[in-house]
Amino acid sequence: MGQDEAGKPGPRRNAVATRARILEAARFHFARAGYDQVGMRQIAVTARVDAALIVRYFGSKEALFREVMAKGFQLGDDFLSGGREGLGERLVRYVAAKAGANRDMDPVLILLRSGSNEQAGSILRQGLDEGFVQPLARWLGGNHAPERAGLIASTLFGLAFMREVVRIEPLAEADIDRLVALVAPALQRYVDGSDPA
Amino acid sequence: MGQDEAGKPGPRRNAVATRARILEAARFHFARAGYDQVGMRQIAVTARVDAALIVRYFGSKEALFREVMAKGFQLGDDFLSGGREGLGERLVRYVAAKAGANRDMDPVLILLRSGSNEQAGSILRQGLDEGFVQPLARWLGGNHAPERAGLIASTLFGLAFMREVVRIEPLAEADIDRLVALVAPALQRYVDGSDPA
Repeated sequence: MGQDEAGKPGPRRNAVATRARILEAARFHFARAGYDQVGMRQIAVTARVDAALIVRYFGSKEALFREVMAKGFQLGDDFLSGGREGLGERLVRYVAAKAGANRDMDPVLILLRSGSNEQAGSILRQGLDEGFVQPLARWLGGNHAPERAGLIASTLFGLAFMREVVRIEPLAEADIDRLVALVAPALQRYVDGSDPA
Repeated sequence: MGQDEAGKPGPRRNAVATRARILEAARFHFARAGYDQVGMRQIAVTARVDAALIVRYFGSKEALFREVMAKGFQLGDDFLSGGREGLGERLVRYVAAKAGANRDMDPVLILLRSGSNEQAGSILRQGLDEGFVQPLARWLGGNHAPERAGLIASTLFGLAFMREVVRIEPLAEADIDRLVALVAPALQRYVDGSDPA
């Protein structure tokens, strides 16, 4: 551990940790109950802060939701730095592991439970588009990159949804290696742009 | 037209028409607002019947929802009677046309807006499984048919969701022929069982 971790936290460090705790609590509640049903007070209780502090840090519930969703779908650098080969497999592993590890925190559930609210829906759309689809399309390049990136998002979403929400067998309980064998080839075709389209 | 259509409707004919009208009204409201938010009275008003009649015909809101969902995902005979060749294309056309024609009545929206209610979720799961995934798996046959059928459902759901709910371009506004070119090959591979898995 560095000196920073061992030493007494200063006010700046505290503020960063508090912000992170608020975001985590917000994400948890939005995933569980959906945008409409969640109040600032619930988030404040879970984050162990005063509701007024949330307003001071983030401004409003809408702004807080926007910040949660800007991170919710963000395509990590580790996917892309691994290169084009095997990207289909890495994406399947990521979605499957995430779903297994922590159902309550999944952005898929937030989408599902908040997507019908008009305001939240447009924030979700923007988060998924700017955080995932557009960067992936730029990175993929080649013919029809935005369509291919959209189809990758659509395939992953369908998979997460079948496993987490609909839970129809045998997909719901299939282990990760099996899912990779089943879904990665279709994703990799979109990555490589190898289907005639 | 047969005599039945031209003649004065008898009580039996009336009952059939009334049941159909109630089911249509229920489907409309469940798709718009989700299972939790819909009351018998709203459905009765739209169907132009007394709420007590709905209870007499269907028993309860849960039973009504079950009946709506048993039909919501039903795989039509026309898909399968067309044979294996081109089934991927027919399924894409069906989902795309349905979404375009009548957004408010789509079972995808019902799934989305009712899936987080535990009771409704289990009815939805059963409707999708018994109405679509299982019959498709039996018809497909061959290796891993239940997984392939599940992946077809997952792919179609992802597509409908991206178009109807998330509405990210260019997928959201892509015309049907374009969608067929983009998605049918992946579906057809699941139909044919041609990916190594």
